[in-house]
Amino acid sequence: MQVSSLLRFSGVCPFLGHSTAGSLRTLAGTANQSTTSALTANAMRCPMMGPKLAAISQARSYASVAGQQEVAELHKQKDIAFDPTAAGKCPHAKAAQEAAAIAQNEVDMKSAEAARAPPVAPASGAFDYQSFYETELDKKHKDKSYRYFNNINRLAEKFPVAHTAKTHDEVDVWCSNDYLGMSKNPVVLATMKRTLDKYGAGAGGTRNIAGNGALHLSLEDELASLHRKPAALVFSSCYVANDACLATVGSKLPGCVIFSDSMNHASMIQGIRHSGAKKVIFRHNDLADLEAKLAAVPKSTPKLIAFESVYSMCGSVAPIEAICDLADQYGAITFLDEVHAVGMYGPGGAGVAEHLDFEAHAATRDSAEPVKNSVMDRIDIITGTLGKAYGIVGGYIAGSADLVDLVRSYAPGFIFTTSLPPAIVAGAQASIAYQREFMGDRRLQQLNTREVKRQLDELDIPVVPGPSHIIPVLVGDAALAKEASDMLLSKHKIYVQSINYPTVSRGEERLRITPTPGHTTEHIAHLVSSVNQVFDKLNLKRTSEWVALGGRAGVGMPVPVEVKPIWTDKQLGLKDGTAPTRLGGGKKGVVRTEAVKIAEQRLTHLLGSEMPKSVSATA
Amino acid sequence: MQVSSLLRFSGVCPFLGHSTAGSLRTLAGTANQSTTSALTANAMRCPMMGPKLAAISQARSYASVAGQQEVAELHKQKDIAFDPTAAGKCPHAKAAQEAAAIAQNEVDMKSAEAARAPPVAPASGAFDYQSFYETELDKKHKDKSYRYFNNINRLAEKFPVAHTAKTHDEVDVWCSNDYLGMSKNPVVLATMKRTLDKYGAGAGGTRNIAGNGALHLSLEDELASLHRKPAALVFSSCYVANDACLATVGSKLPGCVIFSDSMNHASMIQGIRHSGAKKVIFRHNDLADLEAKLAAVPKSTPKLIAFESVYSMCGSVAPIEAICDLADQYGAITFLDEVHAVGMYGPGGAGVAEHLDFEAHAATRDSAEPVKNSVMDRIDIITGTLGKAYGIVGGYIAGSADLVDLVRSYAPGFIFTTSLPPAIVAGAQASIAYQREFMGDRRLQQLNTREVKRQLDELDIPVVPGPSHIIPVLVGDAALAKEASDMLLSKHKIYVQSINYPTVSRGEERLRITPTPGHTTEHIAHLVSSVNQVFDKLNLKRTSEWVALGGRAGVGMPVPVEVKPIWTDKQLGLKDGTAPTRLGGGKKGVVRTEAVKIAEQRLTHLLGSEMPKSVSATA
Repeated sequence: MQVSSLLRFSGVCPFLGHSTAGSLRTLAGTANQSTTSALTANAMRCPMMGPKLAAISQARSYASVAGQQEVAELHKQKDIAFDPTAAGKCPHAKAAQEAAAIAQNEVDMKSAEAARAPPVAPASGAFDYQSFYETELDKKHKDKSYRYFNNINRLAEKFPVAHTAKTHDEVDVWCSNDYLGMSKNPVVLATMKRTLDKYGAGAGGTRNIAGNGALHLSLEDELASLHRKPAALVFSSCYVANDACLATVGSKLPGCVIFSDSMNHASMIQGIRHSGAKKVIFRHNDLADLEAKLAAVPKSTPKLIAFESVYSMCGSVAPIEAICDLADQYGAITFLDEVHAVGMYGPGGAGVAEHLDFEAHAATRDSAEPVKNSVMDRIDIITGTLGKAYGIVGGYIAGSADLVDLVRSYAPGFIFTTSLPPAIVAGAQASIAYQREFMGDRRLQQLNTREVKRQLDELDIPVVPGPSHIIPVLVGDAALAKEASDMLLSKHKIYVQSINYPTVSRGEERLRITPTPGHTTEHIAHLVSSVNQVFDKLNLKRTSEWVALGGRAGVGMPVPVEVKPIWTDKQLGLKDGTAPTRLGGGKKGVVRTEAVKIAEQRLTHLLGSEMPKSVSATA
Repeated sequence: MQVSSLLRFSGVCPFLGHSTAGSLRTLAGTANQSTTSALTANAMRCPMMGPKLAAISQARSYASVAGQQEVAELHKQKDIAFDPTAAGKCPHAKAAQEAAAIAQNEVDMKSAEAARAPPVAPASGAFDYQSFYETELDKKHKDKSYRYFNNINRLAEKFPVAHTAKTHDEVDVWCSNDYLGMSKNPVVLATMKRTLDKYGAGAGGTRNIAGNGALHLSLEDELASLHRKPAALVFSSCYVANDACLATVGSKLPGCVIFSDSMNHASMIQGIRHSGAKKVIFRHNDLADLEAKLAAVPKSTPKLIAFESVYSMCGSVAPIEAICDLADQYGAITFLDEVHAVGMYGPGGAGVAEHLDFEAHAATRDSAEPVKNSVMDRIDIITGTLGKAYGIVGGYIAGSADLVDLVRSYAPGFIFTTSLPPAIVAGAQASIAYQREFMGDRRLQQLNTREVKRQLDELDIPVVPGPSHIIPVLVGDAALAKEASDMLLSKHKIYVQSINYPTVSRGEERLRITPTPGHTTEHIAHLVSSVNQVFDKLNLKRTSEWVALGGRAGVGMPVPVEVKPIWTDKQLGLKDGTAPTRLGGGKKGVVRTEAVKIAEQRLTHLLGSEMPKSVSATA
């Protein structure tokens, strides 16, 4: 931010009013590519400017990975930064808006500068491609967003342990999205191996040409029934599912306007862009902002509201029911990404939408019919993944028969690609069926989440508050976050990837911890003690220090937001004593025999009824 | 086409000159949604109008699947239909251009009509989504492009046999892209099962977060070495690889112009569209057209030529070396999709680019270093699949270290998605390594291709001529092609999918036959006899009938194009007697022991050295 511009607001902002131009310059001068300037850090603590800057930062984050067109489009969406309804309510608001505009212009100027960089032309007169590639990669190195992949090989027999590049060097994995350890569940592995023997490795074609089998249809029936929708369709990944579905529906619906949560995943951003539909970004989980924007479009215009249930990097959860109310009121359809929630929430593992009517769904667990007017019933399009809690790979959509058929019939990303291998779809169905029957894994995962949060909190280690299973430990600096991750790996044999810009905003860099039911009491103790030592060694800010600084990213905020976990004590069995017991003393996990049987029965007609030897189940 | 408009050309076109307005109207009047009018059929036989109409039809084909934006963009590319350099050379040319313009306008009018269709608004005042979905699906039903998926379950033990929806109903599969039967190769299956046991089902994260293992890196090393490039990168599919790579490179290179073959795959069309770069379509495999279009752009402007080696639906092959020459001359980089060629051509199975310098590559087979100035060396970006000849799933790019790193660092479709499961990447590496060592499968596949073509030709059954392994049997009518496919399946227990619009142009509907090394003498005899019976039963046009009609889609053309197979007699071992022997008398296939060992050695350091029991090899 330019200090001279900020000084104009000193009359309305108490912070600016109490600061001299010199001190502001000093604060602004500490900025460099990898860290946040002290001025920006202060601005982010302001209840008015903080959310604005976060929204801009989010926009910049995805913009940087999504190509120049996306940047241009995001820049057009100035309503990210400007909220006319808020202005005038308070002197801070206008100052925040204008400061946000300055920050926005700074982004614009940087983009313009990049566009001006002249392509180097060598002697031949042709464009110098190699120099150009080097320049683009240098940018990543300079702003510390260049990614070095860790070599992590998760061992099925030793879950959640992996070996690194050296096979004898073993580490505890604390950041995988294999949230429930289904990647090593014996019924999943046995089903996949039996399918390999019977149907071979690959599908051999697209769904239309030689690549459509009974296993694909069976998985789609399972998914439709899981979400109690008439139909489902499987894709190579949920990235492809989101991209293809949004691009197809958004381009087909005449004059469609898509309302997109500002923290939506890159796959949704791309799908919306590819649709060519008008995009309106609303502030993260902000119903008032969404409503104001919906109300600005005629009711008869087709509209789609795209959002997620669990936001992966901060663990926040959308107000799904209230968004359905707005959709009804303004004539929109709803598109809910349950990628981080399927398998994890609800009595059947169908996600947060199912969880919100827990009792009604639990009471009709074997039914594929919707619970009328339940939240899940009201959602038009649900998308999910087979690659996180279900432990394999692939993605899908579920919805009405005609909507799913429309995407099936028109989406090039579905039509013109080899279908998933038989073993993948069979394994995925076994995993889903198992989790529909057995709640133990996701309940224990939640209990472990609570325990890790509790122990971290006791040590004053800052966790971004949230109602879900994701534990973001705030570091607040890119270089330090990477150093913390590296130190955990090399000194403590713990793998937690640091999450830096552009995946999260600058100044909100974090370690994203994801407990599983396979993490034992000993694993948890080792994690907490190691994180504590790393915080000491690197002198990372504790919660109390963030409080003193006015808070950041929800940690130590002046007015803390009350957070209720999605899973209640009652649902976890803490009231009636049916809660699962934490693993410890070398215990390797729990496999529910009944759930194994049910998962196997799904595919007995294709794979035969013989119980695989590798499945030795314990209740 | 409007007859009144056509009559204007009667002076320059001998056909129109000899026809009365009445007879033209009669010919035009036979058109309906599913078949080609006799007038269009005649126009397609004209050496001037035929290619123009084919180009328009191609544009319409992909347009219909790619959403309205794509249609708009294709319409802007009027140079598909108009070639200013050809006008004036011959009286036909101008007539053809103007007739093409009429056809183009017809397309425009239909699009405009569709856009005018008013959205139905029910009592609530909201857009009626359900009615809209129904209308869009009705369009597919009406123009016969609605897809009904066959239920085909390919059996590993009985390759190339599959069961249908009924498990006891078995059919011979003749249209899979599992060209070499690697989906049931014992070393592939054993490698996948061992990997499942050791590393579990799913990768558990993106490449950046917990989903990057030694197996992924090992596969990428294998692919880089296969194509003798410094680097390679694996994606969920080659659809994603093409889309992500073209979108990223095309959007990054400042002011990039992408030159795209008119028959490029949907994934490339989408990637180009998503790049936002200027797109120039050149006529299929037409070097003069490409050169004219390259010459029209300043040499210093970044340019990318995107094309395929083997075009899947007609089996044609690009003039790769000549395209490299043009790229050098005009300062472009080359992007070659070898999806239908990897595993199938070249001494190492690296594709057609490798095949073109067969001896030089064969002589240095164990080297990962490029053969300097070979065709493969000159290509900048090669993309390929793990889901066709390699029998599993996934896609990749190979190229210079910095180019690959650029895509790795900037492509959202690579960054923000779960990586492929360990068993998939390990199986793929085993498959590639096996095929690098053993040429027998692809040589036998080619011999079977020649034999099927020979036998069909003897029975006057029309095959679109081509130098590759794909056998397109021309039917020339959508309803009849589907009926032929259905009859083969139900009466003859043979599965060959019919290929209709939009995948191929109207009037060029076909049965696409893909032989494998696993098809025996008996399978071939049964196929040819069955196709012959179906041709009789449905009264489908034989080659001699297409000759009488002036030919279509390369079949029975007045001036036949000479086609030399990519694999020469010498390369197939037909000169020195080392050619593989066709399977027959219940023989189940050949597995080369040495190749199995080499494939296993690749991953011994991770999976251990124990020889899997299921691999019983025969030389």
